[in-house]
Amino acid sequence: MSSANRQRFFELWGEIDDLSSATEVLEWDQETYMPRKGLPGRGKVMATLAGLRHDKLCAPELRTLAEDLAADSVEGSAGLAQGREAIRQIDRAVKVPTALTREIAELESLSLAAWSEARKTSSFPIYQPLLERMVELKRQEAACVASAGSAYDGLLDDYEPGAKEAELIPLFADLRAALVPILQTAQSRAPVDESAVQGAFPEAAQRALGQRAAAAFGFRFDAGRLDLSTHPFCTGFNRGDVRMTWRFEEGDFRPALYGILHETGHGLYEQGLPEVWARTPLGAPVSLGIHESQSRLWENLVGRSKGFWKWALPLLHEHLPGTSKVTVDGIWKALHTVKPSLIRVEADEATYNLHVAIRFDIERRLFAGNLEVSQLPEAWDDAYEELLGIRAERVAEGVLQDIHWALGSFGYFPTYTLGTLASCQLFEAATEQLGDLEGQFGQGEFAPLLRWLRQEVHQHGRFYSAGELIERTTGKPLGAEAFLKYVRRNVEEAYPV
Amino acid sequence: MSSANRQRFFELWGEIDDLSSATEVLEWDQETYMPRKGLPGRGKVMATLAGLRHDKLCAPELRTLAEDLAADSVEGSAGLAQGREAIRQIDRAVKVPTALTREIAELESLSLAAWSEARKTSSFPIYQPLLERMVELKRQEAACVASAGSAYDGLLDDYEPGAKEAELIPLFADLRAALVPILQTAQSRAPVDESAVQGAFPEAAQRALGQRAAAAFGFRFDAGRLDLSTHPFCTGFNRGDVRMTWRFEEGDFRPALYGILHETGHGLYEQGLPEVWARTPLGAPVSLGIHESQSRLWENLVGRSKGFWKWALPLLHEHLPGTSKVTVDGIWKALHTVKPSLIRVEADEATYNLHVAIRFDIERRLFAGNLEVSQLPEAWDDAYEELLGIRAERVAEGVLQDIHWALGSFGYFPTYTLGTLASCQLFEAATEQLGDLEGQFGQGEFAPLLRWLRQEVHQHGRFYSAGELIERTTGKPLGAEAFLKYVRRNVEEAYPV
Repeated sequence: MSSANRQRFFELWGEIDDLSSATEVLEWDQETYMPRKGLPGRGKVMATLAGLRHDKLCAPELRTLAEDLAADSVEGSAGLAQGREAIRQIDRAVKVPTALTREIAELESLSLAAWSEARKTSSFPIYQPLLERMVELKRQEAACVASAGSAYDGLLDDYEPGAKEAELIPLFADLRAALVPILQTAQSRAPVDESAVQGAFPEAAQRALGQRAAAAFGFRFDAGRLDLSTHPFCTGFNRGDVRMTWRFEEGDFRPALYGILHETGHGLYEQGLPEVWARTPLGAPVSLGIHESQSRLWENLVGRSKGFWKWALPLLHEHLPGTSKVTVDGIWKALHTVKPSLIRVEADEATYNLHVAIRFDIERRLFAGNLEVSQLPEAWDDAYEELLGIRAERVAEGVLQDIHWALGSFGYFPTYTLGTLASCQLFEAATEQLGDLEGQFGQGEFAPLLRWLRQEVHQHGRFYSAGELIERTTGKPLGAEAFLKYVRRNVEEAYPV
Repeated sequence: MSSANRQRFFELWGEIDDLSSATEVLEWDQETYMPRKGLPGRGKVMATLAGLRHDKLCAPELRTLAEDLAADSVEGSAGLAQGREAIRQIDRAVKVPTALTREIAELESLSLAAWSEARKTSSFPIYQPLLERMVELKRQEAACVASAGSAYDGLLDDYEPGAKEAELIPLFADLRAALVPILQTAQSRAPVDESAVQGAFPEAAQRALGQRAAAAFGFRFDAGRLDLSTHPFCTGFNRGDVRMTWRFEEGDFRPALYGILHETGHGLYEQGLPEVWARTPLGAPVSLGIHESQSRLWENLVGRSKGFWKWALPLLHEHLPGTSKVTVDGIWKALHTVKPSLIRVEADEATYNLHVAIRFDIERRLFAGNLEVSQLPEAWDDAYEELLGIRAERVAEGVLQDIHWALGSFGYFPTYTLGTLASCQLFEAATEQLGDLEGQFGQGEFAPLLRWLRQEVHQHGRFYSAGELIERTTGKPLGAEAFLKYVRRNVEEAYPV
């Protein structure tokens, strides 16, 4: 491949990446600062950007250049990986008509607004027609991209390359079988006192506390931000500009602090991506599952540990003065309650994956054609009753709680569980190699862990697949073992016999 | 023209408009919330969006469709105006190579950062190489677009279609000749007491006051926002999403309040653009001069009037308690001081156009090749000394004070003067037709004036040229008469013999 062709390939890809970045800035803006009436106009802009990006990705010249790059590169080289990753994305994109891509992008803005309003007023009907249209369009997309596998596989693959419905089914079945008894154990014992995390905590103080911890973990605020939004998220436009969002409850510091620590994990990954591969196929995170492994590792394995709280307790006392009598042990217990709840993002670590299992099951039925949008609220509530024994009184706390479907993100939820499992497996490997991590956290030393993650995960961009990355770092394929061991140990300690 | 072709034309133009909107969101973000390290990546995105927009504008298909639209439309119709306006923009764009457009866009982000840093540290050398490159690129652009007129005409035209250097020269000469004696008059008399606008005013209180006034003028905050930035500006992505920015000084409420009222004038224009022409050639503001006429009308003719203050005084007392002894007359005088000053945006109404005259003169010399970037600081200070009798001690208060050149905006400043003249001429016409405007303002009635501006200016988008619009609304071509009458009357009242 001539160096001019090589340059041309990276120039074309750079433009595609720039269009993604621009879209991400507009999405961030839409969920943080955009005024309500800006929505219809924004939808059109989103459609145009999505259409342009799609056309550029499908240009025959790009695929030829990507093939040449792969063909002219030696096994194991970055060039080969660049070419292959480009071809993978191109081959998925060319199956979807540009018009469909545009229509989905425009519908996202409109249905996001309808969902937001519906959630506020707890009224499904005002959102239902938009969700129906979205499901219709995503079914079309799934039909375009599905090859050998199920229609749902085509959607999964967009978030977790290579993931298969058929492999997730037994995984979730095993998790259900293991987690329901853990929940029953906790329910059979004396409830945990949660008062250590409750009080009256002003917004600014909660924000300051979260920012201190995020900075201590290594998040660079000169290359990032933290803003309020309804649904916390993290998005990286480039490694110098990574935006996290948060929300807070005045009466309980967990939603704010653990939301921020979670997004910090995502943010550290984005800030640690390889600069040398910026604006190239390999310069992106591996998959949403691996992304989530980073967020849940910092949120849970680090942020809920006794070591962390040994270090953080003086900060807590400084920023939230009402907590002066609170102890590490009291907080630790409140952070490890296990009980049925309606809201996924507030669920404890043991029941969290049951919330995901419910969504996985509903999405599968939706895309197998066994469930319609009009039946969703009841199907949702029935599933919660069956698995967790509780039923939402308001649809806002049922099927309307998550933002994902409004954004057309079907097949996204399973990555939360994959990430949770990966976080425990990675942390186990880190502990083996770095020694007493909790002891380090107690001294405010988070840098060794971050360095390890930079080296094992962040710096590789998309060079390895998710499966390869986990296996080379932890020595075994992704499984539920480390996670279940961790959860069982915690529940026994938080709920002694 | 077939209805399919008509639809195709508006579809293509809509995409061009969407790319402008996306760029504007990214610019707004860059000046309000983007972290420092996000800049290099953002520059690349800006270059890609500018290049794509430029390519779309230069596509031969678009020009053919625009010609067909114009040819098939009757005289005086919107179709004809749409076609003509599209052709005007296309014909300008095709003269500029895409690579140059991209390079300027990328340089804007980088030079904005260098300017910002240089201004903070008052050091010209760290910005000089970027400004040199920008001037070089803009000279190339000017050479591309200049036809019969001067190179500078090519730049002017981008902001004020049809404006000519040769016509602005005598205009500024006349203004100098009229304004210098007014300044001398004020300087020869007893200075005005400005204590009425001074105190210790917290950010939140100043913001609340500004927002109350903006809302009273008619700015819709569900279709807009107000955020902090170094250099206040207003940008409209669509009529449902208009963003203003502001800054404040704790010791003086003028910079914040009059900054907000100024941007509110821009914002009202953006919110009043014709919805039916959204994403079409006619759906935009006429010119920057007309845009500025709206901002200066609301800022000065309304916001500095005694009528306004009769209504606003209780609000001032409510939000800024330190002002409880302040009177309408005291404020009015402080708002009508006339004196030499270094900073354009803080200049009084009489000397403001002298600041613009200095910039116009310097830009002309820069683009005639009679001045180099390295000579700018001294040329600037000399001009201030000659015209206003003062010299900046720090370059931050001299040539580095304005953001415009960092953004490649040469030929922009003259629109401030055109807008100022137009604001007075429009207000005179409004007064003739609406009667006692000051009396209405005193009752908090700003809606009749806004309705009049909507009808005479906003609703027409780009249907009329700036010259046509002024003439049909005020009955005469744009001139300095109304402005000079207004300024002379104020100076006589503020500085009695």
